[in-house]
Amino acid sequence: MSEETAELQAEFLAYIRKIEAVSEALELVFWDLRTKAPAKGMQQRSEVVSVLSSEIFDMKTSTEMAAFIAELAPVKEQLDEVTRKTLEVSQKEYEWNKKIPAKEYAAYTKLVAQGETAWAEAREAKDFGILEPYLTEIIAMKRRFVAYWGYEADKYDTLLDQYEPGMTVALLDDVFAKLRKGITALREKIAASDSEPNRDILKVSISKEKQKAFSISILEKMGFDFEAGRLDDTIHPFAIGMNPGDVRITTRYDEANFKMAVFGIIHEGGHAIYEQNFAPRLVGTNLASGASMGIHESQSLFYEIIVGSSLAFWKSNYPALQQVADSHLDNVSLEDFYRAVNLTESSLIRIEADILTYPLHIMIRYELEKALINEELEVKDLPQVWADKYEAYLGIRPENDTEGVLQDIHWSGGDFGYFPSYALGLMYAAQMYHQLQKEIPNVEKVIASDDYSPIKNWLTEHVHQYGKLKEPLEILQDTTGESLNPNYLLDLLEKRYQFVYQLD
Amino acid sequence: MSEETAELQAEFLAYIRKIEAVSEALELVFWDLRTKAPAKGMQQRSEVVSVLSSEIFDMKTSTEMAAFIAELAPVKEQLDEVTRKTLEVSQKEYEWNKKIPAKEYAAYTKLVAQGETAWAEAREAKDFGILEPYLTEIIAMKRRFVAYWGYEADKYDTLLDQYEPGMTVALLDDVFAKLRKGITALREKIAASDSEPNRDILKVSISKEKQKAFSISILEKMGFDFEAGRLDDTIHPFAIGMNPGDVRITTRYDEANFKMAVFGIIHEGGHAIYEQNFAPRLVGTNLASGASMGIHESQSLFYEIIVGSSLAFWKSNYPALQQVADSHLDNVSLEDFYRAVNLTESSLIRIEADILTYPLHIMIRYELEKALINEELEVKDLPQVWADKYEAYLGIRPENDTEGVLQDIHWSGGDFGYFPSYALGLMYAAQMYHQLQKEIPNVEKVIASDDYSPIKNWLTEHVHQYGKLKEPLEILQDTTGESLNPNYLLDLLEKRYQFVYQLD
Repeated sequence: MSEETAELQAEFLAYIRKIEAVSEALELVFWDLRTKAPAKGMQQRSEVVSVLSSEIFDMKTSTEMAAFIAELAPVKEQLDEVTRKTLEVSQKEYEWNKKIPAKEYAAYTKLVAQGETAWAEAREAKDFGILEPYLTEIIAMKRRFVAYWGYEADKYDTLLDQYEPGMTVALLDDVFAKLRKGITALREKIAASDSEPNRDILKVSISKEKQKAFSISILEKMGFDFEAGRLDDTIHPFAIGMNPGDVRITTRYDEANFKMAVFGIIHEGGHAIYEQNFAPRLVGTNLASGASMGIHESQSLFYEIIVGSSLAFWKSNYPALQQVADSHLDNVSLEDFYRAVNLTESSLIRIEADILTYPLHIMIRYELEKALINEELEVKDLPQVWADKYEAYLGIRPENDTEGVLQDIHWSGGDFGYFPSYALGLMYAAQMYHQLQKEIPNVEKVIASDDYSPIKNWLTEHVHQYGKLKEPLEILQDTTGESLNPNYLLDLLEKRYQFVYQLD
Repeated sequence: MSEETAELQAEFLAYIRKIEAVSEALELVFWDLRTKAPAKGMQQRSEVVSVLSSEIFDMKTSTEMAAFIAELAPVKEQLDEVTRKTLEVSQKEYEWNKKIPAKEYAAYTKLVAQGETAWAEAREAKDFGILEPYLTEIIAMKRRFVAYWGYEADKYDTLLDQYEPGMTVALLDDVFAKLRKGITALREKIAASDSEPNRDILKVSISKEKQKAFSISILEKMGFDFEAGRLDDTIHPFAIGMNPGDVRITTRYDEANFKMAVFGIIHEGGHAIYEQNFAPRLVGTNLASGASMGIHESQSLFYEIIVGSSLAFWKSNYPALQQVADSHLDNVSLEDFYRAVNLTESSLIRIEADILTYPLHIMIRYELEKALINEELEVKDLPQVWADKYEAYLGIRPENDTEGVLQDIHWSGGDFGYFPSYALGLMYAAQMYHQLQKEIPNVEKVIASDDYSPIKNWLTEHVHQYGKLKEPLEILQDTTGESLNPNYLLDLLEKRYQFVYQLD
């Protein structure tokens, strides 16, 4: 590497470190707003959010950034791996932002803010008509943006790529078709079963303090590092990583429903352990971040669904739960408890769905988004098509827009291409678990023990440490030796529901 | 105002708002570092502190700022009051920073960082010799800086002005002489008294939870707004205002010594109520800040010493304290309790000193600083002169450097001119209280009640609302009709100690 290139590389990395430092401050502001900030300070705090956000945007799209890209991109093969990928991510973001005329982008920002307000009003009134004009305009702008950004096979690919780099409609159409077929077949078997888990056994009251103590003991087994993170209370649980030494999770406690906090904490803990284990060499670059929404979700679901909802897990942890539940669970067998936890049923609301029906909710949204962007569906027809699809996929029909097309905020905020990540996360997790079982044959023993570090170490080795250094399908390929394969999720679901519903 | 001036004013205010927003983010980072941040994230967080601090410094000393000053200063009479003072404060800071050559300032920053490290080592080793070479160099640089900044009557005035705008050696020499004389006379009377308060009665154990509940009830009476603030735990208590809607205080609990948290919370609460009551028109400018260190301290001491250590206060609050102390204080009379709280004695350590001896600790530091800056004292002679002064002022002599000249971090960090603010705060508070008594004749009734809002409202009307819009002595003059007068503090001390030590 020439001295000049070395110098430029150092300047580029310092510039990126500055962006990351401002981003870290902004993340702290967000964490604080949702956990600790007193009500009366929030209005002025929004000025802080606006100033820091603009600054980050300005730095990512500055002439300085343009110069770094122009000078370093041609010599990028000479750069070390981390700098090269940092440059690529910066370049992608730069182009993404710069291809939209500033005036249109400003109009879009204003529009989606109005859209979210209209969405809240529409929900309140159960009337999609209130949101419709905004959503129509948002879709029109998104279509124009796709034209600016360009696309290869499908316009929707461009949107997918924002959240899940490298993901395509061609691949998703294929895996979703297989997944739907398998889930539908399994649901038919379950419908024919006369063994229904008893959900009422979970209706026990457990104090917040006891739920918290129990959940913390699980976090510790999982390997969440409390010296590099925190657990706080919020209304809407989340995980936020400021740097690998400071990754915070939150939860909400419902004394009448321990599942909310216990599974919520395991889920957010999975996200957090991912971010606590980024390799130190990524810190201060834009690679100290999840590889994609889907990979991030795969880590939370790995712990929540694959580990935390398994029989092996509850074999080990049920006695402690029985203890914190005072005597309320004493007469409930482990098997009955496990069945109740894994009960499945059709529901209208995505965020309340169980793991078997969840992918169907996602497929509906995916198909609608794809049709909207490709001008095969008009916004005004959404409520009708939405309801028809729910009937076709889940056998139930919303009674109004609020329990139908208005349930998610995403579209009114301009987020198209995001939903598939949730289902991808589940498939990634199952595929990874299949591989992990080959490499750690006694994994159920690990799950039944008090120390899951073999699992954490395996995930760190294959996933966590790379952050954004690898793309999602690259991680999957390198880890499991194949591309996305929905059969692993189907196998897992079949095995689990066979037990839960005592299928043949 | 010309259209051009109006436009420039708007641009200037927007620029200031941006500086203030970044400063608010930095304050949140500081609060978080001291209260919530997990240990392993701190190293990376220091990068955030460094980036945001540099950014604030850069904006305050930029060519843009220079242009605002150059264009607006000549027409400042046309600006509204808030903009004009905002400009003046900006200009003062700009010149303060710009008069020091950048290279020297960088060397200074490095030197004081080394100085603070050397101070910690020196304390550990009880050996001033370890700090001496750094302090010698710091003093040499400070003297050069004063030459760059310029001065009128006394070199030390320039340093005083940083913390206490408008304060001078001429004024301080006068009031400190009077104060010392009065305190010394009172101490002689006390020494001759044979009525010694019984300190042991305060040695009761009170749980953290009960101390907290008691202290919160006091904060509520004082008018601390919990929707515009928080109370958290720390090792070193502090108050930090992010904006008037978000002012946070912290405390430390010692179950064996309730005075620490109870008086600590009242003290920090006084600082916080000041910042919660800045006028809304100051928000987003550099005037939403204490008028000076001394005025800030006057507000905390007003509540801690004048209100919170008074007999009227304990008349009303002692029963509640007796209750949280279980039965341990049941046999202690209100008068004996009050006497024990206000006990005075000579001590070597400033931060452990009571209110009667505290000003003497300050005077010693003031005299040494003044002599150092004016080249009338060399650093190597400090330990000896320090010990001699303690003997002369307080009648006791440190046995080693750690309980003498090494006890405070200030000098090793380059903070000269700061100490007088502590004593000024006490004098300001007493002078304000004297005036308040004239305007609210039944103030002791207010203090004995459950609602101190007449006091808070009076302080807000005269002090809080102005933030940095007025200078310290201007606030004092406008509020009390005279300049700084130490007699009000002396009167208060005499009255209080007359009771405590049953003097004639």
